[in-house]
Amino acid sequence: MEIELLRSLATPANTKILFCVVDGLGGLRHPETKRTELETASVPNLNRLAEDASCGLTVPVGAGITPGSGPGHLALFGYDPLKYEVGRGVLEALGIDFDLKSTDVAARGNFCTLDSKGLISDRRAGRVSTEFMTGLVERLRQIRLPGVEVLVEPVREHRFVLVFRGEGLDDRLRQTDPEREGVPPLSAKALAPEAEPTAGLANRFIDEARRIIGDEPQANAVLLRGFARYPTWPALPEVTQMRCGAFAVYPMYRGLAKLVGMAAAPGGGTQMSQLEAMRARWAEFDFFFYHFKKADAAGEDGDYHAKVEALEEFDKLIPLLRELEPDVIVVAGDHSTPAILGAHSWHPVPFMIKSKWVRADAVHEFNEPACRRGSLGTFPAVDVMPLALANAGRLLKYGA
Amino acid sequence: MEIELLRSLATPANTKILFCVVDGLGGLRHPETKRTELETASVPNLNRLAEDASCGLTVPVGAGITPGSGPGHLALFGYDPLKYEVGRGVLEALGIDFDLKSTDVAARGNFCTLDSKGLISDRRAGRVSTEFMTGLVERLRQIRLPGVEVLVEPVREHRFVLVFRGEGLDDRLRQTDPEREGVPPLSAKALAPEAEPTAGLANRFIDEARRIIGDEPQANAVLLRGFARYPTWPALPEVTQMRCGAFAVYPMYRGLAKLVGMAAAPGGGTQMSQLEAMRARWAEFDFFFYHFKKADAAGEDGDYHAKVEALEEFDKLIPLLRELEPDVIVVAGDHSTPAILGAHSWHPVPFMIKSKWVRADAVHEFNEPACRRGSLGTFPAVDVMPLALANAGRLLKYGA
Repeated sequence: MEIELLRSLATPANTKILFCVVDGLGGLRHPETKRTELETASVPNLNRLAEDASCGLTVPVGAGITPGSGPGHLALFGYDPLKYEVGRGVLEALGIDFDLKSTDVAARGNFCTLDSKGLISDRRAGRVSTEFMTGLVERLRQIRLPGVEVLVEPVREHRFVLVFRGEGLDDRLRQTDPEREGVPPLSAKALAPEAEPTAGLANRFIDEARRIIGDEPQANAVLLRGFARYPTWPALPEVTQMRCGAFAVYPMYRGLAKLVGMAAAPGGGTQMSQLEAMRARWAEFDFFFYHFKKADAAGEDGDYHAKVEALEEFDKLIPLLRELEPDVIVVAGDHSTPAILGAHSWHPVPFMIKSKWVRADAVHEFNEPACRRGSLGTFPAVDVMPLALANAGRLLKYGA
Repeated sequence: MEIELLRSLATPANTKILFCVVDGLGGLRHPETKRTELETASVPNLNRLAEDASCGLTVPVGAGITPGSGPGHLALFGYDPLKYEVGRGVLEALGIDFDLKSTDVAARGNFCTLDSKGLISDRRAGRVSTEFMTGLVERLRQIRLPGVEVLVEPVREHRFVLVFRGEGLDDRLRQTDPEREGVPPLSAKALAPEAEPTAGLANRFIDEARRIIGDEPQANAVLLRGFARYPTWPALPEVTQMRCGAFAVYPMYRGLAKLVGMAAAPGGGTQMSQLEAMRARWAEFDFFFYHFKKADAAGEDGDYHAKVEALEEFDKLIPLLRELEPDVIVVAGDHSTPAILGAHSWHPVPFMIKSKWVRADAVHEFNEPACRRGSLGTFPAVDVMPLALANAGRLLKYGA
């Protein structure tokens, strides 16, 4: 459903939606046991919830498309990720909890190695340590450019974030990373006339950085990519007339929630402390986004056993989550992260929704093959939010 | 499929399609028996038909969207209801069998109560009786406005229809109903410059009505909403090269059929007399829209038992419908109306189609969970019409 249609149908109600996103939820069968991570895990509480729920599989973006965290979450929030794009610079800033303003232009930076001819010999400067990189970032902070504030923030290893803050900035710039070695870096060429001044600033930053760190043996230059402005999108609380709160340990997910206008509770702590925070603030919101990270991290590590354990840990939270007595409870994933693949994947993701009004199906287990037989079938993740709202009595009839 | 694609593929054939729409067909499980209305009803004839049919579930408009009767039927007729919108004024006129012309502008009217300060104290004038309202409508018929014919027709309780008939009318007017009490009515403001004259007429009608009924204790003023022109859409008989006849007891459904260019047989009578009318005119049409109302009415009343009975009544008609020997028989619903919800809902709707050419499936019962396992899966209701045409040998091959 288009956001504008959602807006035209949304109506307030005295109901609460608990929206659990298990990062990297979906998996693939282990080659020996022929069972997926969810089929292997002992998840009695998820299975019991599935009995009273409508089950299905969500397609995050489209057939064969492996989503990053951004598109995976945006789709679940009801924003078509092919239409609502987040630039890499912005995502990188969200990931370190950097508070971007709507007029900022952010870029992802890499420290790299240039040889004596000025050609790139290592795009990642030998993956310098995070500690060393943080020192380099300190030195880059002395760079001053006319008319804008220059903010440089460390991320991890060779990666940092560059933010220009000021008026009239434009993000339509070509990246300076040629994405191969043995060639010189590109210039930050303006892709629209209005972006010329920002291109000039980016190129001056690159020159200044070269002047400051040029004597380093490895990290002697910088590459910039993913120039992006903080997007201004319709805000979920305004579109849906719900007070929306995000409860997530990691900054990236609080950042994604803030992108769609949710209020983000303080991060850090544990899954349990975030759950307690939800309980404490239960009266304050109508919609609770609860993010569970470990399944994805284990999947990315290719650690099948750790992913099974992460899913079991999530299962143990279910009774506590149900104690909150939401009118609608959703268990979804932003994408699959099969441990045998060791990466995000394109596979549809197990999904269930429970309310007084769901059409329950004969699915009594929460895993990939069981959800495939669910009453919701395999459906686009952008349909999750309208479905949740409908079950909460928060959508008007369309037409008379 | 887009209407224009349908037009480009449609070809005549010597085949007949019987298109049965059971209003509000889909349901939800009874909390005690855990069975839906269809699962509870004794429907041996529907079950027998399902054995030879392809089954599935239709999504009327989109995930989570609860359709009104208009969008629900338009989708089944092949018209994307998000593109082909019908205004409330037009629907209200269709519902009383009022013969709208394409240049008319219709509005839904409410009698309301204004207090001594001119503020709305009751938007429905205490829901006056239909009889009393009809008397008020008689009095409003004396209103004369320059250059247009003013037609006022009673509907029910506090509701009436106002139609302006003339040249150059425009329906882009703001409704005068502020949708809350304690405030004065709004004016019928023009939302486009071309609508200024029509806005003037609407406001004069409101003033005249106030002059005529202002002394009434309750119904002393009128509110107007849903200004709409009769839409001019591609006509189904022309698009599909079929002679299309509608057989419905209630005016609303004959009206919706006429909106897409079908010929509507006289209304009233019973489901049986409408069936007899179809039989009598079997040579006259290629496509027969047969509307069955009672299931929706019982669902809306929240009467689970009455809905079960309505479905059993429809089941008894099946052998008589099959006696007509159509080449294609469709059993569909415009939306679900679960009795436990007591209202239209967003849930997918049981569907089956039988012809010589369907890919029959292992579904031997006609109900929600059985249809979910059908070979058609869960699919958009706008796909029903192309599917019916294909099964009737009425669609050409696409491309060489």
